[in-house]
Amino acid sequence: MKIDARCPHCLLSRVHYEAGLSTDDEQLIHKTVMAGVDVLKNTYKPGIPAGLVSTAIHRKAYAVLNDPDPYLELKQLSNKVANEVLPIAKNRIYEGEPEDGEIFRRAVLASVIGNYFDFGVMGFDVAPDVFDETFTELFKRGLDVDDTSKMLGMLDNVVYVADNCGEILLDTLVFEIIKKMGGNITLVVRGAPILTDVTIDDVHEFGIDKKVDRVLTTGSDAIGVCFDDAPAELMDAFDNASLIISKGMANYETLSERNFGPIAYLLRTKCESVAEDMGLKVGYSVARLVNCD
Amino acid sequence: MKIDARCPHCLLSRVHYEAGLSTDDEQLIHKTVMAGVDVLKNTYKPGIPAGLVSTAIHRKAYAVLNDPDPYLELKQLSNKVANEVLPIAKNRIYEGEPEDGEIFRRAVLASVIGNYFDFGVMGFDVAPDVFDETFTELFKRGLDVDDTSKMLGMLDNVVYVADNCGEILLDTLVFEIIKKMGGNITLVVRGAPILTDVTIDDVHEFGIDKKVDRVLTTGSDAIGVCFDDAPAELMDAFDNASLIISKGMANYETLSERNFGPIAYLLRTKCESVAEDMGLKVGYSVARLVNCD
Repeated sequence: MKIDARCPHCLLSRVHYEAGLSTDDEQLIHKTVMAGVDVLKNTYKPGIPAGLVSTAIHRKAYAVLNDPDPYLELKQLSNKVANEVLPIAKNRIYEGEPEDGEIFRRAVLASVIGNYFDFGVMGFDVAPDVFDETFTELFKRGLDVDDTSKMLGMLDNVVYVADNCGEILLDTLVFEIIKKMGGNITLVVRGAPILTDVTIDDVHEFGIDKKVDRVLTTGSDAIGVCFDDAPAELMDAFDNASLIISKGMANYETLSERNFGPIAYLLRTKCESVAEDMGLKVGYSVARLVNCD
Repeated sequence: MKIDARCPHCLLSRVHYEAGLSTDDEQLIHKTVMAGVDVLKNTYKPGIPAGLVSTAIHRKAYAVLNDPDPYLELKQLSNKVANEVLPIAKNRIYEGEPEDGEIFRRAVLASVIGNYFDFGVMGFDVAPDVFDETFTELFKRGLDVDDTSKMLGMLDNVVYVADNCGEILLDTLVFEIIKKMGGNITLVVRGAPILTDVTIDDVHEFGIDKKVDRVLTTGSDAIGVCFDDAPAELMDAFDNASLIISKGMANYETLSERNFGPIAYLLRTKCESVAEDMGLKVGYSVARLVNCD
């Protein structure tokens, strides 16, 4: 996905936000935002892939802040809260003893709802009963774009590109049904901390590596997947996958730059730029399969 | 007021917004946002007055867009809607035949609520009954900072620095009570179109010049008041005023850079940067008198 004219102010806002997570020093926050302006000045132009600008601006922010992981506490909180509410989601998925195909559809929906919940930002507000109410409402509404039935025959050798902490625990519900259906799963997480994205540390902490067949990383702290940083075995995994499942907007922004396929984009359209690029509206729960010819 | 680290992304967002008001040409919108990044790169640093950066970025945006007034339609709509709801505000102010001091207080409150309503953005949604409901609620809540009683003895020779279209019609309720109490009013409007701010055209269209003794302009299209652009008679008016009344955040940002006084800031705290600078919270209705020693 190419950068939209809405992206620069949104990125700069995020830089300000993460500076505030990292420090109370107003001068350092100014310095970080100024560095963000510098990066925009040097990288932003029409037609440039959005991921190049977002990766550059966050890398620079982390460097100026001299902080390898400003979101660490938020990520830990997200995982904790999501882990607590996991049984609620599981109950909804298995309610009424559905067929495997229906379980897969519901698990995908739950993981997309997981992409909607920003556990980090909502934080302690997500008490289990509040989660239950909102989750149930979104679950009832279902997927606004639902290609899950077409994915069912493609689950032999899945490469699953994870997105955020918190959300990753809901992703395990998808892993469970893929495994039950006999599929092989390569989970891909970020190579180093970036935003609230999952890294290998989160995978180990919650034993998620035991729910999949293999865990690879993107090879760097890039937003989404940066192909220049990607290890050869990740590129091989993409090439040999029966289905790539890409979670969230940042993975969409970067993976949509290549013609990988078949690839399923599972996400909640949380901003107008991504929604428009997909020909959708903001606020949709999406499981779209593309490049499956 | 000095620039806050939150301002750059907010300004860039506003540039994107006004570009979209002016054109559908995506390349021109990109070009305008890129020019905004340029201005931030060249002007933004800790300690710089916020008004210098905001004036520079909007001037540049208007130049790149080659549009002297992207907000023209919004301003006309704001004035129209505000004019329609004016009798509702007037009824609230004069309800129960209050004393002049109480009328002044209520009129100030109404004009601060006018600063809260963004008639432009709310647009057609502000049907008279919707306005009535929200206005009544805010009117009941009253001023969160209320120095109006201290202002009563200072109304001989008022310089009133106006802010937005729409809002200006509610300001006339303040003019009426000041005139009734025998005061002289110099109204100050922008010297050229900028954002949704009042210019001499709006003053003439609604006969507002007949409700005050004199109308001056800031001498330019600067955000708030730029002293380098201010005509000598405006500086004289500030120096000789018994009370300067400054409406809205942009006038606060710029006038607070000088030690004019006595000066009353009438505004709704709509952003954290201004609220913090005033030692207040966002969402307050404010009539604060300062520099009156």
